[in-house]
This record gives sequence, C-alpha cells and structure tokens, in this order.
Amino acid sequence: MVSDNNILIAQGGGPTTVINQSLAGIINEAKGKYNISGSINGVNGIINSKFVSLNNLENKQLKMIANTPGAALGSTRDKPDKKYCYEIIEVLKKKKINKFFYIGGNDSSDSLRIIAERSKEIKFPLQCIHVPKTIDNDLVCNDHTPGYGSAAKYVSLLFSGINFDVKSLPGVYLGIVMGRHAGFLTAASSILKERNSDGPHLIYIPEIPFEIEKFLYQIKSYHKKYGRCIVAISEGIQDKYKKLFSEKIKKSTEFDAHGNIQLSGSGFLGDYLADQIKNKLKIKRVRADTLGYPQRSFLGCVSEVDQNEAYNIGINSLRFSNKFNKSFSIGIKERKKNSSSYKVEFTVNELSDVAGKTKTMPLKFFDAKNSYVKKEFINYALPLIGKKIPKTFSII
Amino acid sequence: MVSDNNILIAQGGGPTTVINQSLAGIINEAKGKYNISGSINGVNGIINSKFVSLNNLENKQLKMIANTPGAALGSTRDKPDKKYCYEIIEVLKKKKINKFFYIGGNDSSDSLRIIAERSKEIKFPLQCIHVPKTIDNDLVCNDHTPGYGSAAKYVSLLFSGINFDVKSLPGVYLGIVMGRHAGFLTAASSILKERNSDGPHLIYIPEIPFEIEKFLYQIKSYHKKYGRCIVAISEGIQDKYKKLFSEKIKKSTEFDAHGNIQLSGSGFLGDYLADQIKNKLKIKRVRADTLGYPQRSFLGCVSEVDQNEAYNIGINSLRFSNKFNKSFSIGIKERKKNSSSYKVEFTVNELSDVAGKTKTMPLKFFDAKNSYVKKEFINYALPLIGKKIPKTFSII
Repeated sequence: MVSDNNILIAQGGGPTTVINQSLAGIINEAKGKYNISGSINGVNGIINSKFVSLNNLENKQLKMIANTPGAALGSTRDKPDKKYCYEIIEVLKKKKINKFFYIGGNDSSDSLRIIAERSKEIKFPLQCIHVPKTIDNDLVCNDHTPGYGSAAKYVSLLFSGINFDVKSLPGVYLGIVMGRHAGFLTAASSILKERNSDGPHLIYIPEIPFEIEKFLYQIKSYHKKYGRCIVAISEGIQDKYKKLFSEKIKKSTEFDAHGNIQLSGSGFLGDYLADQIKNKLKIKRVRADTLGYPQRSFLGCVSEVDQNEAYNIGINSLRFSNKFNKSFSIGIKERKKNSSSYKVEFTVNELSDVAGKTKTMPLKFFDAKNSYVKKEFINYALPLIGKKIPKTFSII
Repeated sequence: MVSDNNILIAQGGGPTTVINQSLAGIINEAKGKYNISGSINGVNGIINSKFVSLNNLENKQLKMIANTPGAALGSTRDKPDKKYCYEIIEVLKKKKINKFFYIGGNDSSDSLRIIAERSKEIKFPLQCIHVPKTIDNDLVCNDHTPGYGSAAKYVSLLFSGINFDVKSLPGVYLGIVMGRHAGFLTAASSILKERNSDGPHLIYIPEIPFEIEKFLYQIKSYHKKYGRCIVAISEGIQDKYKKLFSEKIKKSTEFDAHGNIQLSGSGFLGDYLADQIKNKLKIKRVRADTLGYPQRSFLGCVSEVDQNEAYNIGINSLRFSNKFNKSFSIGIKERKKNSSSYKVEFTVNELSDVAGKTKTMPLKFFDAKNSYVKKEFINYALPLIGKKIPKTFSII
C-alpha cells in the first residue's frame, strides 16, 4: 500500500438498487493499492468526522454489499454552500485525501463541482470524481445512468402484472411513477407491453404540459374501446407554465434542503386524479397506486445489465482517475445510431458539464399528442432491464 | 375423450400471481380425459354464455399461462343470490357439466356452496370443487392458501429493500399492506428481517384493536432509539369496536357488491397516518407508501414453492373429485407441530366448513403488546416464500 495514496468514497442523494455495485467496483479496484476510507452519510460524514476504513472488507462481504439496495455508507440530502465546502476541504487536507469519489446524481455532482473548484482556487491537489447513479436517468452527457435499468425493470414488470390484473377485473388503473423532471421512468411502464390492447394505454410525463381535460378524454376513449384503461403518470407532471400539478392541488407541502417539493411517499396525486375520473367520467372502478420507494429499493428484480454497468463504472472511475489527472464525472457514452447490438462504453465528462443540469426525454422518444412512447424509446430502454423476464400469456 | 365427461373451470375474486398455476394444473390433469370448458369472468360468464374451450391449449401455452399473473379466464366480484344460482344451474344442466371447478377465495367458495346445495335440492348431479387462492391467507381449514407465499415474498423483499433505503436516508416509513380482516400479509413484512435494528420495527394488523396514541408512542420510541422507524400497517386496521380505521377517517367511501369498503387503490390511510406523525411527533421526514395491486400481481418475484403448490392443488382437485364423489373444497393440511422440515399435504374439506368464513392470525404468532410478530410466525411463513432470496449486507 502506498501510504500517501488516500482515497475517500461517499454516497449522496436518493439511493438505488445498484449504487453499492459502484462502491464495490471502486473498492475492488483500489484494494491493496490505496488506503480506502468511506464517509458515512455523504458529505455530511466528512464535516462530522464520521469515517470508516474500507481496506479490510472480505470479497464475500463486498459481493453481498454490491447486491444490497440503499447506500451501504449512508446518504445525505445536504447541499454544501461555500462555508460547508471550506470545512470539507479542511478535513480532506488533514486526512491527506488525494481522490474523492462521490457516487450520486445531479445534486451530488453539483456539490462535487463546488468542492473541486474551491480546491483548485486554494491549490489543494484533490481529484474529485463523480460516479453517476439515479433511477431518474436525468443526467446530461450520459446515454443512461446506473440505477435506471433496475428501476425501469421494476416499473415494467409491475405494469406487466397490473395489465393482467386489470384484464381480470376491469376498470381504470392509475400508477404514479417517480420522476420529478424527467419522464424516463414513467415511460418504462411500456417496455414489456406486447399487444395494443395491453396496458399501459396512456403515459403522462413532466416534459409534456399536463391538461386534465385531455387526460380525462383520453382515458374515456380507451375505457370505451377496451372496457379498461391503464395509465402511467409521472409524479412530476406540470402545466404549461411549468407549475407542478401536485403543487396546484396540495395545500400543505414539504420542501427538502434543495427546494424540492415532496412528491413521493404520499398518495394524494393519485387519489385526486382517481376522484376526477370517478366524478367526471362516472366510471365506478378506479384504482390509483403510488409506486413509491420500492422503485429505487426493491430487492427482488434487479437488472443484471444495470448491476454490471454500475460495477464497471466504479472500476473505471478509478482507472480513469489515474489516466486523466483531473476532476471529472465518469459517464456512459451515447449509443451510436442504427447500431444493432447494445454495448456500453465509458467516458469522461467535465464536472461543470454535468453538475446541476437535468436531461429530459427527447422528442424522438415520445408522442405528445397520443400520450405514449414511440418505438425508439422501447429500442433504447429494453436492453437496460436485462434478459431475465418471464414470458406471459392469457386466455382472455 | 369421454363425451359425457364435461368439466367447467372458472376463476373468481381478486387474482394472485399463481391462480393460473391451479388452472394449468386442472387442465393438464384433465387433458384427453375430459371435455374442458372455461367460463370467462367467473360465474358471470356462465349466465352470460361466455365460454371457451380449453381442450387444445399447447403445453408451451399452458406453461406461459401458469406463469402469468391475473386470472387468465377473467374474474368477477359477482356474488350469486338464489335467482343467479338457478340461472347458473340451468346453464350447467344444458351444457351437461359434471364437475365445476371454481378457483377463488372466501366469497367464491360461498358462491359455490350455494350452487352445490341448490343442485342437490333439485337432484342435478353436479360436483362443485372449490380450489383455494388468496393472498390474504384467510381461509379456514387450511395451513395456508396458494397465492399467499408469493404475495408474502413480494412484501418481505419490499420491506427488506426499504430497510436499507431508510438506513441511508433516515426517517419514518409507513407501508400500508393489503388484508381486510387478516394480518398474515402485513406480518410477512418481517420475514427477512435479520437484526433488531432492521425494519420493520412495528406491525399493525386488523386482529389487534388499533389505538392511534399507542401507535404514535411506539413509533416515537423506535425513532429515538435508532433514528428511524419502519412500520407495516394493514389496510384493515380496526378499533376495539371492529370499526375500520379507514372508515372513521374517510368521508366518501366506495363499496363493492359484497359490501366491502374500498381499501386498496387509494393512499388516504397512509397519508393520514403520516400527517399525524409529522404533526404530533414533529418528525420531519415521514413517508407513506400504499403497496397496492402489485402485491397480488407483481410479475418479477413469484415464490417457486407457492407456484408448485398452486399447480399441484389444481392436479389434486381433479384426482380427489374422482376419489370422493361429492362437492368439496380442496385444502392444505395444517402442519404437524415441531416438525423440522416443511412438507405440504392436500386434504378435502366440506364446502360449508370453508365458505364465507375468515381465518385470522392466531395469538401464538403475534405479540399484541409490542406490535410485532413472534418467532413462531417466521417459522411458519419463511418456507412459503421459497429459497431464491438475495443475501444482503450494509456497512452502516
């Protein structure tokens, strides 16, 4: 072990089912070559001196950690301001950290950008490496992000099951899907649809202004045609002025430190929309499920493709940090157009190009008029959920 | 094929992920020996003459049907009255049906009891065979019911994932679990718990009178101890007068044909309880997920034990119908006490012993004072979810 080669790993933001694959990837690549520390609860653990040595984890433990949802080091919603950054840098200096790996999404990469810029200003030779994760798939400069494939698998399997359930006992089913600004996860509800009559029939995403009249009209049409209608709705649907629909209907709201309204962990959006359908369309059997936290933590159906990518992005983040002696955000390269087989390639992005920005659903993936995905989206998303998908068949 | 050997199969009530295993079991056992019809949408398809031949399904199709959630023949919530029964029997007479297999729960077995009794009265030689399914596990005379194991697997994997999610970002998490009268499925949230500090910490079931003050006090204690608290709550929690807690807090209610209030497909119970915790305990991060329909239809994590049992109960229902020339409800025998290995054995129950009755959580399984399951429940439920459970490990 090189004694002045100290690396620190932390995890930030909402965890995913594969965030610990990336952690295991970095540790496995660093083992024996670096002195590896972990900070408990992201950047919060740095200023509160909550560190743990990661040098002596056994392979068997590392494998189990990789397969465990949630952030194995704990996470945080803290968004460092300047003062917070000074404190972080002071601690990292004292601990002689050379490389700081922060596994996280939009907000975490922005925290990292501030720390990296500040370190440069004061000439502290720290490499800040952002390792992406997010179920929302809303990171720019990336074909997709680790965490999305498994969340998409959960959502697609869930809607596939719901399709047969609602076939059995017809009515209207609303599923409220996570995604504050980007509709990728809501769109994933369509991935396993086989026939036109299968659900979901309609998909509403934050990128397309939500109009309640159009929503009711479209549900009415499908209900008339098939006797049932299955709908996937993003928790982040907005009106044409970009005002959250949830904000319009909720009196009391809860904001986190980043100024985000609480959308998940509450059923009020689904309940409100279900009431509208019952009252205005006079349809009796209307059910709304808010998919909630299992989308990012369900233990039973992780995508093996997503697992491998999350692990390998961890490995490569350390390799790239040696190849390119600077701070960066590791990413997954955009796929080549018209390429027949799916293949993943990692790349290096500038932190300032990624940090705090939000990627949204491109127009080529979504048909706004018919509130549904285009075939291009299925081609894009299908390889990400892996191949272990049960085959289904129904008599009715 | 014996031309006067006509059997009819139907499916009723809320479907499960393995209800089609039982359908496939009956069909496979009957193939080539009987003329097999299916009724579309349960008893409703009988009076509306919606039948389908099941003689020519290929093995490959049958296998796919068996693995598909929802009722492959469609289901119904119709509860036949006397007039409805007369009509059913008239149709069955005309179609010369000798054996009628109805795959369903409490309500379906009661429909079957009425039809069987009426047929006896008018000397129509019809065998009515009830094949149990229910995720609620609330059928009397049965150790457990097909459908429960898979739903229990989904709920236990979900809470296991949530445990790591809430460890990462601490707070209070409420999961509202299906189960109108019986707490078996809510109790399943505990099956994969490993350490005392793991969630769920508290479980509230319909069998134990729900007191909001005790609920708040217990959450406060765990939150103080671990900085987090994970709670599983049955949608059917009641006060000491057996009045549904949901009824007390909801103004407008929806009732189905059986006089049941709509509990699932709405987030209001979770939202109400979360608000109570926020306001009375001044805890900021409180999240409530209502687990909803995926509990009975999720495609991705069916229990292989449950699948086998559901398939074999189908096979044996036909065998027993030949061995015992009468109407009956096939069941799973109660396990022997102190038996070290789990083994399933089928038995024959009288329809009137099963029909319309509700099995609830026995006291030996639940510690009412501490709002948690006893070890005996884990021993009972663990074998039912199968062996394909990922191993987990966390650093914090």
